[in-house]
Amino acid sequence: MASRRGRFIAFEGVEGAGKSTHLRLAAAALRARGFDVVETREPGGTGLGLEIRRLLMDTRADPPLPEAELFLYLADRAQHVAAVVLPALSAGKLVLSDRFSLSTLAYQGFGRGLDLAAVRQADALARRGVWPDLTLLLDCPVALGLERAGRDDRFHREALAFHERIRAGFLQLVQKSATPYAVIDSTQEPPAVQAAILQAIESCLKET
Amino acid sequence: MASRRGRFIAFEGVEGAGKSTHLRLAAAALRARGFDVVETREPGGTGLGLEIRRLLMDTRADPPLPEAELFLYLADRAQHVAAVVLPALSAGKLVLSDRFSLSTLAYQGFGRGLDLAAVRQADALARRGVWPDLTLLLDCPVALGLERAGRDDRFHREALAFHERIRAGFLQLVQKSATPYAVIDSTQEPPAVQAAILQAIESCLKET
Repeated sequence: MASRRGRFIAFEGVEGAGKSTHLRLAAAALRARGFDVVETREPGGTGLGLEIRRLLMDTRADPPLPEAELFLYLADRAQHVAAVVLPALSAGKLVLSDRFSLSTLAYQGFGRGLDLAAVRQADALARRGVWPDLTLLLDCPVALGLERAGRDDRFHREALAFHERIRAGFLQLVQKSATPYAVIDSTQEPPAVQAAILQAIESCLKET
Repeated sequence: MASRRGRFIAFEGVEGAGKSTHLRLAAAALRARGFDVVETREPGGTGLGLEIRRLLMDTRADPPLPEAELFLYLADRAQHVAAVVLPALSAGKLVLSDRFSLSTLAYQGFGRGLDLAAVRQADALARRGVWPDLTLLLDCPVALGLERAGRDDRFHREALAFHERIRAGFLQLVQKSATPYAVIDSTQEPPAVQAAILQAIESCLKET
């Protein structure tokens, strides 16, 4: 059974929560059920986005300051929405994105301390009215996520307190969401996490 | 005579209006008079900005769409203001910048047709309250400027109508400026243009 109009599902959460792995697994499961699935991510869902991602993840001498970082993420999103997300939704596809606007609000708002209203306003220009039909928040303790991620880029080297603010931000933001969401305990065994994800997606696809 | 607190002067105008050349000449003349001058530019006034500039000027397959372009300019500005402009102003320097916020309003607002109020709002976050003490608008007919510039990047290959909208936008924006500005006819011979620039700068430095 393929959806007749597109649906947009965002996978959100702290570093190492399992977003990328579970997005891949969910995409495979949904394809097996006949859905036309597009797997994408932010930053880096477009050619331009890959270059922006490189600037953001770099650990070099001139890392982006908080406002510059915000605008780089929004540049990535603007290109991604216009070139990937909107065309796929118009073609009736099921779009699974590893991160979307909630990450910007959690990281740049709660994490970096930028004014949340200003971040929302700027983000509105980038996302062009697009908002996920379903947000899956993969939640796990910050220390566990960082250990799982185990990569050495500048995000992972930030203080634990920074990541704690982001985790709390995600939980607070998602609970105020006007559209469906599911908070999934990603400390569970992967098959249990995956089952919860697929259940939430199926329930969203049935409802709409 | 060196200024005791910093001053910020923006050189604005269409492609090929002579901003870069006249900024260099003015910087040399002002240094000879004892001013501690910082010459800078947007995009590309920082290490990060140089990489952003490369993404913006590139003529490759995935050029930034209008909103993405806006956010790349704002990322460049945010880094530039925080890392270059504000520290120089705090140190009492005279900062001359080849482009600033007026270019974003003219190019992305008037040129690309993005909502001007939304552009202003996002720009306010990038420039952190900084605004030029003096704006020098070097004005010349679009065709002359493009001929002078003579480079082959994607801006120069845009339709003439796009550049006409930008020129008109600059003239309209600067006339509404709450801070001093001078519109300088850059079709004049270079010494006359330079004299007009120095006169406007001296008058601004005396007043404030």
